[in-house]
Amino acid sequence: MINVTVWNEFRHEKSNEEVKKVYPDGIHNCIADFLKKEDGISVKTATLDQPDHGLCDEVLDKTDVLLWWGHMFHNEVSDEIAEKVFKRVLRGMGFIALHSCHLAKPFLKLIGTSGSIRWREGDFERLWVVSPGHPIAEGIDEYVELENEEMYGEWFDIPTPDELVFISWFSGGEVFRSGCCWNRGAGRVFYFRPGHETNPSYHVPQIQRIITNSVKWAAPKRILEKLNCPHVPTSVEELRKGTKK
Amino acid sequence: MINVTVWNEFRHEKSNEEVKKVYPDGIHNCIADFLKKEDGISVKTATLDQPDHGLCDEVLDKTDVLLWWGHMFHNEVSDEIAEKVFKRVLRGMGFIALHSCHLAKPFLKLIGTSGSIRWREGDFERLWVVSPGHPIAEGIDEYVELENEEMYGEWFDIPTPDELVFISWFSGGEVFRSGCCWNRGAGRVFYFRPGHETNPSYHVPQIQRIITNSVKWAAPKRILEKLNCPHVPTSVEELRKGTKK
Amino acid sequence: MINVTVWNEFRHEKSNEEVKKVYPDGIHNCIADFLKKEDGISVKTATLDQPDHGLCDEVLDKTDVLLWWGHMFHNEVSDEIAEKVFKRVLRGMGFIALHSCHLAKPFLKLIGTSGSIRWREGDFERLWVVSPGHPIAEGIDEYVELENEEMYGEWFDIPTPDELVFISWFSGGEVFRSGCCWNRGAGRVFYFRPGHETNPSYHVPQIQRIITNSVKWAAPKRILEKLNCPHVPTSVEELRKGTKK
Amino acid sequence: MINVTVWNEFRHEKSNEEVKKVYPDGIHNCIADFLKKEDGISVKTATLDQPDHGLCDEVLDKTDVLLWWGHMFHNEVSDEIAEKVFKRVLRGMGFIALHSCHLAKPFLKLIGTSGSIRWREGDFERLWVVSPGHPIAEGIDEYVELENEEMYGEWFDIPTPDELVFISWFSGGEVFRSGCCWNRGAGRVFYFRPGHETNPSYHVPQIQRIITNSVKWAAPKRILEKLNCPHVPTSVEELRKGTKK
Repeated sequence: MINVTVWNEFRHEKSNEEVKKVYPDGIHNCIADFLKKEDGISVKTATLDQPDHGLCDEVLDKTDVLLWWGHMFHNEVSDEIAEKVFKRVLRGMGFIALHSCHLAKPFLKLIGTSGSIRWREGDFERLWVVSPGHPIAEGIDEYVELENEEMYGEWFDIPTPDELVFISWFSGGEVFRSGCCWNRGAGRVFYFRPGHETNPSYHVPQIQRIITNSVKWAAPKRILEKLNCPHVPTSVEELRKGTKK
Repeated sequence: MINVTVWNEFRHEKSNEEVKKVYPDGIHNCIADFLKKEDGISVKTATLDQPDHGLCDEVLDKTDVLLWWGHMFHNEVSDEIAEKVFKRVLRGMGFIALHSCHLAKPFLKLIGTSGSIRWREGDFERLWVVSPGHPIAEGIDEYVELENEEMYGEWFDIPTPDELVFISWFSGGEVFRSGCCWNRGAGRVFYFRPGHETNPSYHVPQIQRIITNSVKWAAPKRILEKLNCPHVPTSVEELRKGTKK
Repeated sequence: MINVTVWNEFRHEKSNEEVKKVYPDGIHNCIADFLKKEDGISVKTATLDQPDHGLCDEVLDKTDVLLWWGHMFHNEVSDEIAEKVFKRVLRGMGFIALHSCHLAKPFLKLIGTSGSIRWREGDFERLWVVSPGHPIAEGIDEYVELENEEMYGEWFDIPTPDELVFISWFSGGEVFRSGCCWNRGAGRVFYFRPGHETNPSYHVPQIQRIITNSVKWAAPKRILEKLNCPHVPTSVEELRKGTKK
Repeated sequence: MINVTVWNEFRHEKSNEEVKKVYPDGIHNCIADFLKKEDGISVKTATLDQPDHGLCDEVLDKTDVLLWWGHMFHNEVSDEIAEKVFKRVLRGMGFIALHSCHLAKPFLKLIGTSGSIRWREGDFERLWVVSPGHPIAEGIDEYVELENEEMYGEWFDIPTPDELVFISWFSGGEVFRSGCCWNRGAGRVFYFRPGHETNPSYHVPQIQRIITNSVKWAAPKRILEKLNCPHVPTSVEELRKGTKK
């Protein structure tokens, strides 16, 4: 069983009528709903305005994969919680950063760059699969089309992805590395571009499939204990002297 | 001094009036001409229909960086010469594969995949810089525009590039990893997409700058001796016994 | 169900008494035996001296992951079969190259380098996990120790691995990138170092665990049709004109 | 001309007699001295206990490559200066992290992991070249030996290096990725392992050569302006309408 927590800023959906129409229960519940349909995945949600942003130690300690959607209020996420998320990823938790989370605190800590992009609202987007054998692209044809999405364009200031799964084409003339995998510590990080709050991208079956795939890909193989720097004795000489094993 | 050899199939330019107008002296001489203007680069050319395709041992042994343009007659390149080029790259020679050389024999031997693409003639192309700090992108702004080029689209069947410098946007809806770096043996390989024979891309100053940059980047730091598998004695114990150095 | 074929040269085990003692039924059967214990894996074997080396089209077409052990007779593998294996990997089949297969024909075609190493028989080896979150390292502690193995040392002439899972330490003073992952086409390739024919490494539970993990990691997510270069019409304009979908 | 600043904690050399003997003028001056001998490099130094740690804006703005040596007092580096160094790297400045700087503030911000290692004082170290064609390995034979160094062992918690140049072997049984390159923003980052304060490694000609090579490799190709997220108009349609260029 993969224990998933879907985190959402959950402000646009309450303040903006246009967003409310697209995601009446919040982006987090839309994502949670399609993940719940998958065998082997257990889903909870958490939001910015809950105590500890809904991410107290008990929740984080039981989370295998954390999905994160935020946009205008990245700075209201406390440094303490961002640090806890960061450290848990290093110890093995998967982290899926969605759309405008190229600027989210935990994501920036993990990638080590500015996350800068260029942007514009209102393009046609085509996500091309550039790694057809990758588990995150399983079941996806050559490309996925989204009639209307916010444009994100290069230069995207990220470290070279360990694996690049999607590159987007936008009708206005831009390209973007839209599906990027990184390893950090014992954890796996996936950035996935689509998901502007006024566009129904998370209702699109292929987008749901990609996110579901990414959750499975990011599920931890082990959770490490503390990452300190252990002092160690010489082990080989013991072994040779016959004092070890 | 970087010793460069520009290799060209040199058939289209003799048989096709349209190509002849764009590259009257052949693509190889167009490229050689702009490289010659650069301090520290010495340039020769070679073509398919010369003996040994112009790549006898004396030529290859003195070549630091080999540029390769071929299109319809990849199969007329002898296996022996392809193998010699391949081995010299492993020993340190730089190799720049241009445009339709995604299917050239030496390139395919080096990358280990099929080089398959999708294609169509007659698109507007914009090459986006996705690695602004890379030496091959030096002096290039955010993107380079080519009014008319052959479209190459993903999925491009290549190994993950060690460094990805350019991604192209095409007006017809495709994207392409257009500037790709790989290390192979002690040598460096760069694939650069533009350069359809009926389009004047090699006359564009920014394209010339990129190719010139790539030659400098690919220049060898050392040329290795034969790559065999040496049997070696235990060296550490000698050192400890004081019998070494 | 993952359909696995374990391929072995199967000559040493018949001609050399020392090898026969360690692997009385051949290395392939030793490996097949521990893979068979795993749920969801179906195993067959094939050897060099069978017709088509045991790898006729019917066998290859049903193979999801191919393991390969060869040593002294790489050159007796026909170019035709090597090419078929190569192409099936690009279409999605997993390929696990074991020990001396750093020089096997299909492996060399896939990596695009010489595979050169340095070597010596009779060292103590310690394989360090350098990617603890990787699925191939699942269940493996900080390192695995092998009392007696052939030493393989750097420089190992391989392309930079897409993922590096193990680095070996040898008592004689060498290091080696012992567990290397590459993507090729839609397929996944893993090189795993241990397994000299006179050493019982494939009887070691941790080594068995690593190989089993690698089979699961390399299992295809899809098998592609032919990798040709399709000519494609402009798709975006059709879409905009409403003539598409 | 490459403008280099060598930064040093510069405390051990004043408080510890053993260190004082090895580096009487401080590690920074030892490094500055050998860099100064190289044509095309201009060198200044800065230390922790200077105002702003010697890294006021005027200094940073003129620094092309910053070398960093720190050990016990990483936490005394102000967050503000660490942030300034981090941002300047993203804009293009090279950054060379030496030895115990696997835990230095600017390095940790750039890599996005914990930098955790295992360690022990007093081993024989052999640095193997695993990327003989890399500019940082230019002029270095198969390996460099250091009679006495502090051992750093895997697992080293770093992101997969974009390029791995050296792997160390230690007499006590450990291995370590000792020469690691990353791209961050428009800047280049190199981590180089040797350099314990009581060992004379920075006096060793081959070590000096590697550090000098790394400075040239990390020298910026451009310095970017601010990395914000620009809103951009649709550019392609303008181009097509003939209103652009």
